[in-house]
Amino acid sequence: MKDSKLTVTAFDWVPAFAQGHVRDLRVRWALEEAGFPYQVEVMTQGAQKHPSHLRRQPFGQIPTLEIDGRTLFESGAILWRIAETSDTLLPQDPAACDRVLAWVFAALNTLEPPVGMLAMLDLFIKDKEAAARIRPEIASAARDMLDKLAAVLGPEPHIAGGFSVADIVLTTVLRDVPDDLIAGYPTLRAYVDRHTARPAFRAALEGQMKPFLENAARYEAAG
Amino acid sequence: MKDSKLTVTAFDWVPAFAQGHVRDLRVRWALEEAGFPYQVEVMTQGAQKHPSHLRRQPFGQIPTLEIDGRTLFESGAILWRIAETSDTLLPQDPAACDRVLAWVFAALNTLEPPVGMLAMLDLFIKDKEAAARIRPEIASAARDMLDKLAAVLGPEPHIAGGFSVADIVLTTVLRDVPDDLIAGYPTLRAYVDRHTARPAFRAALEGQMKPFLENAARYEAAG
Repeated sequence: MKDSKLTVTAFDWVPAFAQGHVRDLRVRWALEEAGFPYQVEVMTQGAQKHPSHLRRQPFGQIPTLEIDGRTLFESGAILWRIAETSDTLLPQDPAACDRVLAWVFAALNTLEPPVGMLAMLDLFIKDKEAAARIRPEIASAARDMLDKLAAVLGPEPHIAGGFSVADIVLTTVLRDVPDDLIAGYPTLRAYVDRHTARPAFRAALEGQMKPFLENAARYEAAG
Repeated sequence: MKDSKLTVTAFDWVPAFAQGHVRDLRVRWALEEAGFPYQVEVMTQGAQKHPSHLRRQPFGQIPTLEIDGRTLFESGAILWRIAETSDTLLPQDPAACDRVLAWVFAALNTLEPPVGMLAMLDLFIKDKEAAARIRPEIASAARDMLDKLAAVLGPEPHIAGGFSVADIVLTTVLRDVPDDLIAGYPTLRAYVDRHTARPAFRAALEGQMKPFLENAARYEAAG
């Protein structure tokens, strides 16, 4: 993959709450860590719903990764493929590698769903009063997972041995935990801070934010 | 893996709504399709919270797969490893294999979250009135995904070329879509029926259900 022509899709602008949290961030971060050169195809808001994009991403989402003209979708799948071909994102030992694989899926399929449910309640549900009534029960389910995550992480710097693709996925999931919840988990906050301080993360974040800043005036004027 | 000693963890009983839907089903099904012999460690309800289980599964969930004494967790990770070592669950061609990988993650990380949110509202939230008020908005998000899935599946029998591990994951996700939603998607219902008619699925389902039937009287008497 190092010598392939790589192109990530991203948006030219998103609303403020999503800035710095769109999922191309994961892919950029992994590519930066792996040291694979890549280009970015910046898509106009709305273009994700066009048939040409739906042909490469059936749900009209970003990111996709084009690898020598072939398109891969789903951030988890893209990250796993980058990790497998990198020297820095997966351990050599098969047992250690399996642990990383387990944590990639745990972050996306066990931790992200309750975190996403809270985001849905806090940001998208129009019936605010009903959402507020349900939130404590969902927050409790999320806390139960965070309790267990904090217990297994303990004082370790990374989730599965040395730094790996599992830390990229887990960090991006934990960044989306609402402040009132994550405040109760100092070791998880420190885990996020430790990983978001990495130069590759900073480069990925700057890359995502750049077009948002350039296009803010135009989109905000359009309402 | 074919010649490894494989042990799946499962429960000895679960409440009626979960019977036939516990995630060891995915793992059993994949092992049956791959033709890998396996044993089952049937755990008493409550044992998933014991320290000895939390050491192998940090979130106190099932299933795990023990492979020659080493434990792998998260159904998605387990299925991917089984598929990689099987002759029947992944295509040989790298581009086709990437498509299957994308669909494994899409099923678990794009489709399962809204389906799981509906299950949460329908089964677990105690404030039924607030849950009922929010449900139409979540159902609409789920329908948007199902519309796109039905569009990309079209008249094809499987989601990514020939039968693959992606069909095992996607079928188990779609089986959990509430009846009022899936009723609107005849091709998706036919997709589920086509895959749940496979002998390997039937064997997996029977395997999961057997201890539930044997232990029903004991658990139900205990309330």
